[in-house]
Amino acid sequence: MAVDSSATTVWEGNLAQGKGIVTAASGVLGELPVTWASRTERTAGKTSPEELVAAAHSACFSMALSHGLTQAGNPPDQLNVTAVVTFEPGVGVKSSVLTVEGKVPGLDQAGFEAAASEAGENCPISQALAGIEISVNATLS
Amino acid sequence: MAVDSSATTVWEGNLAQGKGIVTAASGVLGELPVTWASRTERTAGKTSPEELVAAAHSACFSMALSHGLTQAGNPPDQLNVTAVVTFEPGVGVKSSVLTVEGKVPGLDQAGFEAAASEAGENCPISQALAGIEISVNATLS
Repeated sequence: MAVDSSATTVWEGNLAQGKGIVTAASGVLGELPVTWASRTERTAGKTSPEELVAAAHSACFSMALSHGLTQAGNPPDQLNVTAVVTFEPGVGVKSSVLTVEGKVPGLDQAGFEAAASEAGENCPISQALAGIEISVNATLS
Repeated sequence: MAVDSSATTVWEGNLAQGKGIVTAASGVLGELPVTWASRTERTAGKTSPEELVAAAHSACFSMALSHGLTQAGNPPDQLNVTAVVTFEPGVGVKSSVLTVEGKVPGLDQAGFEAAASEAGENCPISQALAGIEISVNATLS
C-alpha cells in the first residue's frame, strides 16, 4: 500500500533576500528556516534542501543496509551513516557520498563492504536520486 | 563553488524492530526519530526518508520559482508550496507532487502556471530526483 508523506515551505520575497519556513506533516521537524544564503554558504542555524536530502538518504540507506545484513544472517548492532550532499550553485546537486561505520557481529570487512555497496545502489532514496552520483564507503568499527 | 551539506543517521538493530536517530550538521533538525513503522504507517511523532525528501523538494522548488518569477519581473509576495512524496514498500519512491499557491502581483494564472511548471522541471532537487515522477499544480491566491 502506498504511503504519502508531505511537507510545506512558505517562502516570502525573491531568492536573494527572501526567506522560507519548512514544516512537515509529522510535526517533528518543527519550523525550519531556510534561505539562499543558508543553502550556498551553510549559515549556522538554518537548513537547506541538500541537508534535508542528506538526512533522507542517510536514514534510507541505514534501513536498507540493516535489512540486507539481517536477511544474510548478520543483523547489525549499530550502523552510523553520514551522507554528504554536494551542491554547486548554477550547476545543481552533484553527489551524495555515504560513509558507514558498522558494528556487525560475525561479519568481515569484505562482507560488510558488499552489503553496503548493494544498499547504496538499491535503497529507495538512491533509486529516486537517479540524477546524481552516489558512492559508499564502509568500515567495520 | 561547491557546498557540502551533511546529515547522520545512527541505526540500531534490524529493520522491523530497530530504530534510528537522524541529525544534521546545521543543528536545526534536532534529533529526529525514524523507524520502518514510521515510514510505512506514518506514525505520529517520527519522520521518514520520504518526509525529508518532501521538505527538501518544497524548499528547493520555492527558491527556483521565486527566482524565475523575479527574473521575469514579477517577484512573489508569498509562495506556499506543499510536496507530497509517495512511497510504496517493496517497490520504491514513486512520485513527488508539488502544489503551490502564490501571491504574485501583476501576474495572471497562465503566467504563474508556466513559471511553476518550469521550476518543477528544473529546480536542482527535481533534477536530482530523476528516478521518480514529478508533477506541479499551481494556483494564484
